[in-house]
Amino acid sequence: MNIEMIRAAAGRLKGVAVTTPLLSSPFLDEIAGRRVFVKAECLQKTGSFKFRGGWSALSALDDAARARGVIGYSSGNHAQGVALAARAHGAPCVILMPSDAPRVKIDNTRALGAEVVLYDRATGDRDAIGGALAEDRGLTLVKPFDEPLVIAGQGTTGLEIARQAAEAGVDKADLLVPCGGGGLTSGIALACEAEAPGLRVRPVEPEEFDDVARSLVSGRIETNRRKSGSLCDAIITPSPGQLTFPILYRLAGPGIVVAETHVLEAMKLAFERLRIVLEPGGAVALAAALFSRDATGGDAVIAVASGGNVDREVFARALAR
Amino acid sequence: MNIEMIRAAAGRLKGVAVTTPLLSSPFLDEIAGRRVFVKAECLQKTGSFKFRGGWSALSALDDAARARGVIGYSSGNHAQGVALAARAHGAPCVILMPSDAPRVKIDNTRALGAEVVLYDRATGDRDAIGGALAEDRGLTLVKPFDEPLVIAGQGTTGLEIARQAAEAGVDKADLLVPCGGGGLTSGIALACEAEAPGLRVRPVEPEEFDDVARSLVSGRIETNRRKSGSLCDAIITPSPGQLTFPILYRLAGPGIVVAETHVLEAMKLAFERLRIVLEPGGAVALAAALFSRDATGGDAVIAVASGGNVDREVFARALAR
Repeated sequence: MNIEMIRAAAGRLKGVAVTTPLLSSPFLDEIAGRRVFVKAECLQKTGSFKFRGGWSALSALDDAARARGVIGYSSGNHAQGVALAARAHGAPCVILMPSDAPRVKIDNTRALGAEVVLYDRATGDRDAIGGALAEDRGLTLVKPFDEPLVIAGQGTTGLEIARQAAEAGVDKADLLVPCGGGGLTSGIALACEAEAPGLRVRPVEPEEFDDVARSLVSGRIETNRRKSGSLCDAIITPSPGQLTFPILYRLAGPGIVVAETHVLEAMKLAFERLRIVLEPGGAVALAAALFSRDATGGDAVIAVASGGNVDREVFARALAR
Repeated sequence: MNIEMIRAAAGRLKGVAVTTPLLSSPFLDEIAGRRVFVKAECLQKTGSFKFRGGWSALSALDDAARARGVIGYSSGNHAQGVALAARAHGAPCVILMPSDAPRVKIDNTRALGAEVVLYDRATGDRDAIGGALAEDRGLTLVKPFDEPLVIAGQGTTGLEIARQAAEAGVDKADLLVPCGGGGLTSGIALACEAEAPGLRVRPVEPEEFDDVARSLVSGRIETNRRKSGSLCDAIITPSPGQLTFPILYRLAGPGIVVAETHVLEAMKLAFERLRIVLEPGGAVALAAALFSRDATGGDAVIAVASGGNVDREVFARALAR
């Protein structure tokens, strides 16, 4: 895993992914007590950075593998990112989803052309079902984060941030990234190591799902006690990956943990001050930038807003605060 | 008023204004029956394209005029655009607002450093009050649309669209623009005449406030019968301007008129499918792209999403549909 793989992914994504803007507002600067820049990756195709990794993986397949197709496991953003990338490449796409996934996410994934296979989360073995499907049809598995081509795709976000921060006159700042399995965070860390070494990558997680923060402290892969029940459903992966953790340990940290009330407040402020829609998991870094003032230093901070696929009910709850 | 003035404004705005992205979603393409591209100008500083015109005017003042300051009349987006531009130029800024303007808009304009002077809409004479203030202090009036420097600033949106449409492979399409006084629409029309002559500019207005559409039919400046009462408060200027109308008449039309129910539906779809926040006036062009299918032709359509300064209550109403 290296910077050349990220640069190559950027070449494959050129003219395909949205170059998402780096936004700011004097009102947010005021709250944070320093300049705040927000990389609005919620504006990416399919509403999250996951499209970059999906496209990176699909575009690197050889013709035969592409013709056989791909398979992904996801109940959310990875599903849609892979589905759209597969459709654009003319590749069959199977997404294995838990049968209790929100109806709208199942419908959206199907609408993007994927074959959705449902399994029972309580009684089914996801890996066994997926493995059998992949073997039967010769499908290539596109993992959500612990996969070099996927990390390379997510890392292109970091190349853009490096350039945009320099244009904004920022060469030294904490760079806060919502962190689940660590694909986005490790990719951005590798990109910044090469292109913007003054930016220090800080993984951000919700309270009680701080596996990455604890892993960075202990030096080994730690696991969350709870597996579900967070508002930030997009980033509650049980632990960092085998590939991503060594990169995070070398280049990122310390982790920052934020409260759900601050996440909802950040969503409301993103609506009011930046006019972007964030899902809770996509708003944790902005929450840290605004409300974890002592956790970061310097006169500027950059927060990645990683996704915006949020139910209307949850969004209305944030606005009603 | 010519393309060179727009190019010069683009030079002054470089590194200052957000280069807002051209967004798309397969779900919107499906609804419209053709490819839909959305210029997300709601992501501009202060939440609307008005910042471009404000900056264009402020940055062109000589030092003495800048030191004396500027004055603007507005209850909304123009106020904030001028206020932020003035503050960045170190220029005193007076904004004359009706005393019944929404509290949040008054507060925001003050927070951006402007001196807000309130007048009674029923009994006060805005032009007399503003004129006296301007004369007293030597302030330069920054008009909201009928001013070459302002039209030039708004026109930079068109230069970006011309480039972004070409990158997306679109050289022939209807380009739908929310239209109040016509500053944005005429600026974009001039930019496209020079840089993307295959894009046909179509002003879009809400029902009962279709002064521009009627003016383009009759060939002379028509006025709305109603002065208020539209959800689309940002774009219900009574009539097109003396400067903007001749440009619109030469380069734009025919106008398109949309229903408020379609505007609210477009706001909801922009939330769900593009993750951007639109105010009603900023959503009329997207509404036309999605729901006025017979009013436009071709296999692609571009809609400008011109602003996102919306009250939470109005936004919640759109989401609840």
